[in-house]
Amino acid sequence: MGSYSKSEGAKGRVLELDPAIPYLRLQTVPGVRDILPGEAALRRQLEAIIRDTLAAAGYQEVETPVFEYEEVIRAAGGDLQDRMVESGSSEGESPEVYRFFDREGHTLVLRPDMTTPIARLAATRLASAPRPLRLAYVADVFRYEEVHAGRQRQFRQAGVERIGGVREIDADVEVLTLASQLLARLGLSCFRIDVGHAELVRGLLAAGGWGAREARLIRQALRRRDYVLLRELAEQQVDEQGQARTATSQQGQARAGTSQQRQAGTVTGRQANAARRLLLQLPRWRGGLAMLETARQQLAFLLGDFPQLAAALDDLEALLTLTKEAGLEIYERQDGGGAAADGGDSSATDGGDTTSQVIALDLGLVRDLGYYTGPVLEGFAPEMGFTLLTGGRYDRLLEQFGSRAEPATGFAIGLERVMLARERASRSR
Amino acid sequence: MGSYSKSEGAKGRVLELDPAIPYLRLQTVPGVRDILPGEAALRRQLEAIIRDTLAAAGYQEVETPVFEYEEVIRAAGGDLQDRMVESGSSEGESPEVYRFFDREGHTLVLRPDMTTPIARLAATRLASAPRPLRLAYVADVFRYEEVHAGRQRQFRQAGVERIGGVREIDADVEVLTLASQLLARLGLSCFRIDVGHAELVRGLLAAGGWGAREARLIRQALRRRDYVLLRELAEQQVDEQGQARTATSQQGQARAGTSQQRQAGTVTGRQANAARRLLLQLPRWRGGLAMLETARQQLAFLLGDFPQLAAALDDLEALLTLTKEAGLEIYERQDGGGAAADGGDSSATDGGDTTSQVIALDLGLVRDLGYYTGPVLEGFAPEMGFTLLTGGRYDRLLEQFGSRAEPATGFAIGLERVMLARERASRSR
Repeated sequence: MGSYSKSEGAKGRVLELDPAIPYLRLQTVPGVRDILPGEAALRRQLEAIIRDTLAAAGYQEVETPVFEYEEVIRAAGGDLQDRMVESGSSEGESPEVYRFFDREGHTLVLRPDMTTPIARLAATRLASAPRPLRLAYVADVFRYEEVHAGRQRQFRQAGVERIGGVREIDADVEVLTLASQLLARLGLSCFRIDVGHAELVRGLLAAGGWGAREARLIRQALRRRDYVLLRELAEQQVDEQGQARTATSQQGQARAGTSQQRQAGTVTGRQANAARRLLLQLPRWRGGLAMLETARQQLAFLLGDFPQLAAALDDLEALLTLTKEAGLEIYERQDGGGAAADGGDSSATDGGDTTSQVIALDLGLVRDLGYYTGPVLEGFAPEMGFTLLTGGRYDRLLEQFGSRAEPATGFAIGLERVMLARERASRSR
Repeated sequence: MGSYSKSEGAKGRVLELDPAIPYLRLQTVPGVRDILPGEAALRRQLEAIIRDTLAAAGYQEVETPVFEYEEVIRAAGGDLQDRMVESGSSEGESPEVYRFFDREGHTLVLRPDMTTPIARLAATRLASAPRPLRLAYVADVFRYEEVHAGRQRQFRQAGVERIGGVREIDADVEVLTLASQLLARLGLSCFRIDVGHAELVRGLLAAGGWGAREARLIRQALRRRDYVLLRELAEQQVDEQGQARTATSQQGQARAGTSQQRQAGTVTGRQANAARRLLLQLPRWRGGLAMLETARQQLAFLLGDFPQLAAALDDLEALLTLTKEAGLEIYERQDGGGAAADGGDSSATDGGDTTSQVIALDLGLVRDLGYYTGPVLEGFAPEMGFTLLTGGRYDRLLEQFGSRAEPATGFAIGLERVMLARERASRSR
């Protein structure tokens, strides 16, 4: 065994191998990795800051198992569910979670997030605990995705879930403020948290009268900021009578979410086409409170027929106003019809000067988990092509676990991504 | 969904179910569980004590991925490997680890321990780091075993690995002392750490001339303290010439481990039968330094032919002497031919009075992982039917990962078991 050379390539791959040793024995699985002492020590420091910050805000840590029954994870719905169906298996095989089987033939899944397991916990063992529940976690989650920079298959999330009580925008303010405070405490001097609203996109999809498949593709195009695909999908006009549209619209609503309060039967084809044009503009509707006024004016002709749109705008106005009162800076630069967004993947790089910590509206923001029902959050650092922080309101998830309807909101940060952002920031200083 | 009742049974099972909700959605998988805020806070406290204690002793924390290629885990060898073979699949399917597959058809395994992944890490990415490496961890491990009290399928281990440098008993003293110190710092006022030696059992199995299958069964009987089975296996005498025995003995040695230094060709049938009688006595050879003298006298007729037996006794004498000098209490009560052991599962309850922290010899101690090559450790608390702590020396494991032969020793505690022991101790006060 002495012939083995320990020289390593750039990726830590062993270049020469002893044939007596199985090649895989010397490898970690792609997308997961060892953490050496220096990095591990930094992780412990940051986790201590996280725990202190969340505990000081009244959030109590819980743990859940690394794996769950697939039935639990499926309760999350949304694109995860969509992709389970898309993967070509009519049985709904999921391409993006790690699945395995117990001896009873049940499917187990390595948890892809913590919100769903904590919702299960809140609806079962903590069903009679006083509300609101303020729960926190620091935990590894697992996604079987393509491996590239910033996307590992095992990564550590830290976050909070505020569950139950009265549905009030104060809960979203609390969570958004805490999210901003946490990023700052973790040493990020410059970041932006985008705020959107799940019902805004759903409402416009309903008003535009898209079918189920189109609505799903549009959500994906918005999420991936694929403006070419978005234009292709959104530019198809419906006929003047809107007959066919009305039929598909109801499908579209059923598909788009469970919280539609209004059927689209009374919307005219002209309204639908106008809604389609507005949806194309969504990614440009970024900025501060003034942006909300622009959106309200442009959407005025739909607010009567689609009250969820008005409610979403009201939510966002209250959220931003109260967040500003809580001392957070709201992004206020206004460039023409929107903020800095001008297509492309500018999301990670724009957002004011390079030392600010700001909250900004992004009305085209779409999260990939289907359970969101209200304000949604995404946090970015400059020159980072991925989110540091995600979150939002999910008032219908607890019902999936047999609970009464309970309002809920929360956020998660990605520890490894926060560490990358800190590193880049210190290098550019 | 309002018909769902949240009343829970004694085990937290929901008694009434909404038929619209899949039954499994409300469950955690058997053998894993949620940790509620009070317990989670206590875990964080204990983990902080663990990290402080191990860091103060010079051990640096590392992390490894939750899953590994099966090839890595198989390097551990021993009963885990045996059971993979025993499970009836000629492909070596393992019944006691969670296995799943990636898209390339490789088998992944949820890590069943941390020693093997850390050995991989030490032999690859840390191959050129200065020796000795002193590495620590606090991590979840996974075993797909029968669920009963104290045995969860996901549990948290904390421990150290001291890898490389010169093979010296000082390393074992350091690890044993740290193990004892850690249990004390975690609030256990009463515990016993048993010390055995892997080569003692292997040497006696070789001297007794058992075949591969018998040797494996005897190790299992010793591990499970199944004295009826042990007597049945050990009482079969070999013939006077020892011919057949010699053939199977070599098999037995190949099976029993990789570190046999001596073939058994020169042993007579009479010696083999005497060795068999001594092996039956092994579980009774428990106590302190005086016990070692008894063992040395009884084994005297084999020490020439099986130098590993003499080396094992020397190791244990040095380990106990130096541990005593380091200030730890060595169990010294001597009852007849051995210590308190008199068959049955007394291991968890005896061990002197109820407030002591002692180190005791247990020459019949066998660990279920095959990689041990020197002193082995098992820690117990009073009235607990399972180990709190396990460990030992594993000088051949690093080679399995293409490294030069490197001496290594370490221990792990089970966090949940330590918590149970604390609870019972505080209740009995």
